[in-house]
Amino acid sequence: MTKKAVVLASGGLDSTTCIALAKSQGFEVYAMSFDYGQQHNAELDAVKRIVKKMAVKQHEIIKFSMDGIAQGSALTNSEIEVPDYQGDGEIPVTYVPARNTIFLSMALGWAEVLGAQDIFIGVSEVDYSGYPDCRPEYIEAFANMANLATKAGVEGNKLNIHAPLSHLSKAETIQLGLKLGVDYRLTVSCYRADHEGRACGQCDSCAYRKKGFIEAGVEDPTPYY
Amino acid sequence: MTKKAVVLASGGLDSTTCIALAKSQGFEVYAMSFDYGQQHNAELDAVKRIVKKMAVKQHEIIKFSMDGIAQGSALTNSEIEVPDYQGDGEIPVTYVPARNTIFLSMALGWAEVLGAQDIFIGVSEVDYSGYPDCRPEYIEAFANMANLATKAGVEGNKLNIHAPLSHLSKAETIQLGLKLGVDYRLTVSCYRADHEGRACGQCDSCAYRKKGFIEAGVEDPTPYY
Repeated sequence: MTKKAVVLASGGLDSTTCIALAKSQGFEVYAMSFDYGQQHNAELDAVKRIVKKMAVKQHEIIKFSMDGIAQGSALTNSEIEVPDYQGDGEIPVTYVPARNTIFLSMALGWAEVLGAQDIFIGVSEVDYSGYPDCRPEYIEAFANMANLATKAGVEGNKLNIHAPLSHLSKAETIQLGLKLGVDYRLTVSCYRADHEGRACGQCDSCAYRKKGFIEAGVEDPTPYY
Repeated sequence: MTKKAVVLASGGLDSTTCIALAKSQGFEVYAMSFDYGQQHNAELDAVKRIVKKMAVKQHEIIKFSMDGIAQGSALTNSEIEVPDYQGDGEIPVTYVPARNTIFLSMALGWAEVLGAQDIFIGVSEVDYSGYPDCRPEYIEAFANMANLATKAGVEGNKLNIHAPLSHLSKAETIQLGLKLGVDYRLTVSCYRADHEGRACGQCDSCAYRKKGFIEAGVEDPTPYY
């Protein structure tokens, strides 16, 4: 029987690489995305194109309102401006409280229903914005909790949280993805992308992505406005 | 400054007791409920009455679709029948995959935005349905993960997950709540409650609740249909 994996898919560079990686490892991919009032909605358009092109088995978009939570982040509160890249080591205003925890929890529920024991998330602790929920020790703690939370875990079917990009730089992720045939033109990373999915080139996310293509020594296919 | 607490509020007996308990401990209560397609929607009507009566500071209802997850449980899939109480030690079909993890994750996000370091959840490992995400070791693992997930945790403002009913029987919870002035007539526990919030008296949840009132030696105020 083919192994199933739930892959968190944002439409960005990292999660798209995760889809390709999970497929290359023989998993049947169930992609999960979220419509949580993010301002950069171009990413949802992108992810729909990506899952179609990459022929994932099933794509689920979970829509939820989180007004109370959303007000804390520039990504979801239009009154907080998304700043240009700061690089000062502080957790930036684009941090969405508990976002990866909420996403992984939903993925956990779906994995249990599907009978999947594997969840992929494209976080990295290299070339990232300093969000606490991107660190390996966080992923490990989540996996530990997940195995106590679920019927599957209790019955001995261990759930694995894969963060395969954890120790890769953006450049290494790009090189890996290109080897796996990822078409990065389809991906949108920008926090301020326009309706056509074109990038600003100035925000945190653009800064890391641009640097990644330069260091990888490949042409940046990103359309900028 | 008054301490803030996020309290998960389902409209049932346990979470309503938690609201009273958090208030008695001096917390300003922020109640959080979920509209996730549960069939027993009478609980949302109940929780609205409860938070009003108990004068909580703010009430947030998070609405989300979780079709893929929901199909796995009798509480959210109308094609699976909610059975009468079985009491056979198996995890019953009313188990919703990863439910408490999803709820606690959302509470975590809200707590961080509010600057709250305390979250209350009314789970108990006594007189319960055998759901894995009601056990103390699960709650402990969640708290550990939460402190690695969040900006607050990273900055040393420890988040506490309170499960104050964990070691109480239903009867002890009822006695505690009555001392704190909880009006249990307002609460709905039944998985098959009708539109007026009246209970079936036969499902798992009703069975534990009925037994609780009998053992507590107080009259059961629950309206049954």
